[in-house]
Amino acid sequence: MNESTNFAMMRPGAPVLEPGHVWLAGAGPGDPGLLTLDCLAGLAQADVVVHDALIDPRVLAMAGPQTRLEFAGKRAGKPSSAQADISKRLIELAREGRRVLRLKGGDPLVFGRGGEEAIALAQAGVPFRIVPGITSALGAMAAALIPATMRGVNRALVFAAGYGADHVAGHDWAALAKTGAPIVLYMAVQNLGAIAAELMKGGLAAETPVAAIGSATMADQQILISTLARAEADLHAADIPTPIIFVVGDIVTVREQLLQAAQSRGG
Amino acid sequence: MNESTNFAMMRPGAPVLEPGHVWLAGAGPGDPGLLTLDCLAGLAQADVVVHDALIDPRVLAMAGPQTRLEFAGKRAGKPSSAQADISKRLIELAREGRRVLRLKGGDPLVFGRGGEEAIALAQAGVPFRIVPGITSALGAMAAALIPATMRGVNRALVFAAGYGADHVAGHDWAALAKTGAPIVLYMAVQNLGAIAAELMKGGLAAETPVAAIGSATMADQQILISTLARAEADLHAADIPTPIIFVVGDIVTVREQLLQAAQSRGG
Repeated sequence: MNESTNFAMMRPGAPVLEPGHVWLAGAGPGDPGLLTLDCLAGLAQADVVVHDALIDPRVLAMAGPQTRLEFAGKRAGKPSSAQADISKRLIELAREGRRVLRLKGGDPLVFGRGGEEAIALAQAGVPFRIVPGITSALGAMAAALIPATMRGVNRALVFAAGYGADHVAGHDWAALAKTGAPIVLYMAVQNLGAIAAELMKGGLAAETPVAAIGSATMADQQILISTLARAEADLHAADIPTPIIFVVGDIVTVREQLLQAAQSRGG
Repeated sequence: MNESTNFAMMRPGAPVLEPGHVWLAGAGPGDPGLLTLDCLAGLAQADVVVHDALIDPRVLAMAGPQTRLEFAGKRAGKPSSAQADISKRLIELAREGRRVLRLKGGDPLVFGRGGEEAIALAQAGVPFRIVPGITSALGAMAAALIPATMRGVNRALVFAAGYGADHVAGHDWAALAKTGAPIVLYMAVQNLGAIAAELMKGGLAAETPVAAIGSATMADQQILISTLARAEADLHAADIPTPIIFVVGDIVTVREQLLQAAQSRGG
């Protein structure tokens, strides 16, 4: 039993992962330090961890010595039957009496299709628990020193998916633009140009700042600062590691303010 | 040295909180199990924890044996000079060479004024680190079994503050309503009636579902399901513990779907 398993089991009040139960858990944006204590408890207790592609090996290494790791990754563009297969597999493992940790990047209920898995489990009579994780957007913004909200800049924030079954057409981008709130885009690499065009048609200025935060919180994190008009071209010219979170709005300029203040003081 | 301090210090790759540095950290929505490993590392290493009112005593108990706890709570309605005092205190402690953990509920950069504290620290030349936490809205939704996003229901999500320096008038509620996305409200108890009226004027149906999630993730958590038209009256008739997160939109009905599926199977 390693140090983290030991701690996870000893923590007073740590929830118990029962045989035949499934925890739908989020591992956060990437950095293992952003894992929650409950997620760690799930890793320590699970018989099987069914995980996505983006879970860091250092996170999986925190699983108990008895834990089996099962990869159930999907990538954008794969047919949605893969999702049904994952739900089926979770139900199967639970019915075999396993303690199951379903581990996703970010938060399981934010663009992670955890809601669908929860419904499948509920319909199958499998008891489950949701273990939230730090959603990729907020983890990335923090890592890029872009506050999600700032007095005098914004009092609302929009999260939007840039990819999915219904692609760009699935949104009323003009309505999102008209809120005046920063828009944080998940899974938008492929459609960035089209989305930027829609947002400008909806009233956002061509010079609206855009931050692209690649591989947020990880050693290879890279940040590109651009504008709505130039974001697609700048992204193609640069070599930003995926996954990428995009932040659209004046809030992006707070990053510069922070960096300049720190630099001018040598901090 | 207790079990958690021990673990926090031993974890390979755990970040080091240096003397004279400040970490602006989020403790998550309440349940100590939703603390991150990095936040735990901050608690273990800090000389001083400067914390808000809503931090659970079980979280503070994870601080190291040498750690001094300083309460710096603010409550809605207090003059904003309190904020300047907190920033001043953080700078003072850092200049004394302390390892400082500034601990807030939820995420420090989501309606937490962490951005302002970061700017004050940067301007003072104090090195700082942002340690994100699970934001109250997403923690509350997970605890209430309301997915933040769900295929066929929504592909965007709005966070909005219902209180603050500029109150209800600070938002274009009609524009937020017209996105069609669920709207999650922070700090909206006082203005709920006015906000609901604005959202209905903006086009949301009177029957739009509203969930009020009080004391989310804690033992006294309570959930009230209502509609935009009735939410204020229902809230006053009920006795929901604060803080309360409100979710406005059809996504709220997924909770019923999940509960019914689970009940019909005895799960």
